Amino acid sequence: MTFNQRLAETISKKNSLLCVGLDPDLRRLPDYLRHEANAILLFCREIIAATKASAAAFKINFAFFEAEGSAGWEMLEQLAAELPADVVKIADAKRADIGNTSERYAHAILNRLDFDAVTVNPYLGKDSVEPFLQWPAKGAFVLCLTSNPGSVDFQQIKSQGEPLYKTVAKQVMAWNKNNNCGLVVGATHPSDLQNVRELTPGLPFLIPGVGAQGGGLETAVKLGTDTAGGGALINSSRGIIYKSSGTDFAEAAALQAQRLSRKINQVRQAKTFKSTPK
Amino acid sequence: MTFNQRLAETISKKNSLLCVGLDPDLRRLPDYLRHEANAILLFCREIIAATKASAAAFKINFAFFEAEGSAGWEMLEQLAAELPADVVKIADAKRADIGNTSERYAHAILNRLDFDAVTVNPYLGKDSVEPFLQWPAKGAFVLCLTSNPGSVDFQQIKSQGEPLYKTVAKQVMAWNKNNNCGLVVGATHPSDLQNVRELTPGLPFLIPGVGAQGGGLETAVKLGTDTAGGGALINSSRGIIYKSSGTDFAEAAALQAQRLSRKINQVRQAKTFKSTPK
Repeated sequence: MTFNQRLAETISKKNSLLCVGLDPDLRRLPDYLRHEANAILLFCREIIAATKASAAAFKINFAFFEAEGSAGWEMLEQLAAELPADVVKIADAKRADIGNTSERYAHAILNRLDFDAVTVNPYLGKDSVEPFLQWPAKGAFVLCLTSNPGSVDFQQIKSQGEPLYKTVAKQVMAWNKNNNCGLVVGATHPSDLQNVRELTPGLPFLIPGVGAQGGGLETAVKLGTDTAGGGALINSSRGIIYKSSGTDFAEAAALQAQRLSRKINQVRQAKTFKSTPK
Repeated sequence: MTFNQRLAETISKKNSLLCVGLDPDLRRLPDYLRHEANAILLFCREIIAATKASAAAFKINFAFFEAEGSAGWEMLEQLAAELPADVVKIADAKRADIGNTSERYAHAILNRLDFDAVTVNPYLGKDSVEPFLQWPAKGAFVLCLTSNPGSVDFQQIKSQGEPLYKTVAKQVMAWNKNNNCGLVVGATHPSDLQNVRELTPGLPFLIPGVGAQGGGLETAVKLGTDTAGGGALINSSRGIIYKSSGTDFAEAAALQAQRLSRKINQVRQAKTFKSTPK
């Protein structure tokens, strides 16, 4: 089964588009956890146990583990091995380098840590992305249009009327020979999200930039999903994991994940109901 | 002292532009080393001892350490702590993410591992690069025009006649408020290298893509250095560290580094002799 098939199946089985993003910043953890040697691991474990019923995927942000050095990488290994089998495991590592180096990153993340997919930066072009696509069961979400302010600096630059992020999207369509490519498209640019959706049928989206705010969420689900209301993961990180900074953080995360997943499904239902031919 | 000042001083003191790139691929190490638990660390130690007299900088490629998991990160920590004090220590990590995540990568690499500089990918724009520039004594080499085949896919796309890599170069000039920005510009595109050099006076270049081949080397030094024959690091990785695959690998690396550094200095001398007013 290719990665994109596996993702579609997971979305369907779990009836969820929710991706829970794990960005465990030691400085933001509850007091009682912060001073444990493996605090970020303990924190992530509780978040995962609390939210896994609502999530189709977990996205692990490597920076927050690397910030703890080799001990952080040990926790990353531990966590990767413990993620539930029925979710999609995404390494948010934003890697890419020349071919022989990308090949080592792909080995580290998709073989050794055994993630299902990894986020990849397209700036270095095709041969920097290909090593992440060599195993059909493993996938890559290529950065297309990101959710941060700096996304206007280069991604929106137009060549013959076409912004760079669209050129990237088209290239990724061409690279999708193994049915294992996806795109990162931020929720903070609604009309652009719609543009990319129309341009790249069949490519799954990983959509960051959705907070606890209902408005952005509704637009992201409406415009980012395919006509059947699938083909996208809606990511929330800080909005879930830091919903409460007290001892009830896991309970608060569970409720928020549940609420988000339900809200997403309401929008999906309204969308597919409308688009069903009479 | 800012990073760019420190780099210029190191180049001057060591009379070298050579950057030795450490890409320790376990599969390519000499037989007698390959089966040691910390083979890549032992290999790098020998290469460093053998080449440090000729080198202004060492560039450590993170992918080859991550390929060994948390044990690889431990070796990375060990190696970073052991690098000679009189060289510039560059983390070739090609990182960048949204602001709060880039901040954690910057902490991991420039604080915790205490590298002097890091390679950074510009695709996500200003707020993804800024966290790497917050300490004037620490620097970032931003990818501008890379040396791989895929560099034509996006970096060469023209907007109103200007290729993307030039737009990136100009932006980095504007971000250089702390005098700690540099650019990665490959040696495989000579005329483009010259274009960027003219466009960004004062920004140091990290120039990969130079092999053992004298031709590419001469062009890179001529076109990539500033008018005084400085302001650039010429990187060689595989051409030095795998010069011999036998037990004499360190000796072969030492000779190759020496040869390269001398050849580079010959070109610098010829260039500055010619450009000195009569």
